Amino acid sequence: MNNSKALVIIDMQKGSFTTATPRFDTEGVLDRINRLSDYFRKKRFPVVYVQHDGSKQNEFIPQTDEWELLDELDVKKDDIVISKYANDIFYKTNLNQKLRDWGIEELYITGCATDFCVEASIQSALSKDFKINVVSDAHTTADRPHMIADKVIAHYNWVWKNMIPTKGRIEVKSFQDIEEEMKCD
Amino acid sequence: MNNSKALVIIDMQKGSFTTATPRFDTEGVLDRINRLSDYFRKKRFPVVYVQHDGSKQNEFIPQTDEWELLDELDVKKDDIVISKYANDIFYKTNLNQKLRDWGIEELYITGCATDFCVEASIQSALSKDFKINVVSDAHTTADRPHMIADKVIAHYNWVWKNMIPTKGRIEVKSFQDIEEEMKCD
Repeated sequence: MNNSKALVIIDMQKGSFTTATPRFDTEGVLDRINRLSDYFRKKRFPVVYVQHDGSKQNEFIPQTDEWELLDELDVKKDDIVISKYANDIFYKTNLNQKLRDWGIEELYITGCATDFCVEASIQSALSKDFKINVVSDAHTTADRPHMIADKVIAHYNWVWKNMIPTKGRIEVKSFQDIEEEMKCD
Repeated sequence: MNNSKALVIIDMQKGSFTTATPRFDTEGVLDRINRLSDYFRKKRFPVVYVQHDGSKQNEFIPQTDEWELLDELDVKKDDIVISKYANDIFYKTNLNQKLRDWGIEELYITGCATDFCVEASIQSALSKDFKINVVSDAHTTADRPHMIADKVIAHYNWVWKNMIPTKGRIEVKSFQDIEEEMKCD
């Protein structure tokens, strides 16, 4: 496996995509995640699904319907699925160690929700010196009390573009930009 | 010193409070930070100012005007001032170790900017298992391309209230609520 880059797909689980919590452009986000995962597999880069285990909060309990990954995701047998327990995908998981063991220094971040687990995980990855590419149109959230979902998404994409670099650096790129990169690599 | 709690005041520096980047309710935020720091000192809890050193980005260079703490801050000689280098106050600083050495497990977070250094530092502190109290009306930011400053502040206060707890937990309280706590302790 070519382990310099990994695609990270956060919390695309049935319990987060219900009629009670509609997410912005779910169909488009799923399509872009599936197409990205295909590019990553073809390059032999790991595709990592992160699945929230909320047992401590009595929600998203393993083996329940809400815990399951969305049926629309094109999960393949060699993809990696790991559990997480807080908003930050690295909190009390061995993901950091696994990525280091695999030689991965660059992450492509996608998933849900923009303002919770995606944001918390990006902040954590940046402080851990990963090089980060946020896929600007492959993460999503729901309407919030003070603003609609697409404004939330636009705000976080803008913040991530303007953060102070650590040893790594963070970039925000559209699916189309990454598709071009993948075709040209 | 009574070291169970600390007040953390992030990046209240001259270069972030100019006419080019007006911050929401600067006067009110400064007043509440000063009054909080007074309560903390009276309880012999540490008051920690975090000051951004942006030498690597050629901005906020130590000893320049923009790097200085705001004149309106009521800094006392026993207060602690530490430097930071990225958005996250813990990134490549010894603050985590210092707080642990002092026995501090609970942080009260204030400062600027809500959506950059305050947010990054809260995420980092939460993953480090600190108990966190965000002072809802003692952090501030500027208008952003997609939304005005007070909407940004309301959004982050809402997100922090709704995060998944780690070993610590995060609460969002107004200055007034904390003032009541401090009077009754």
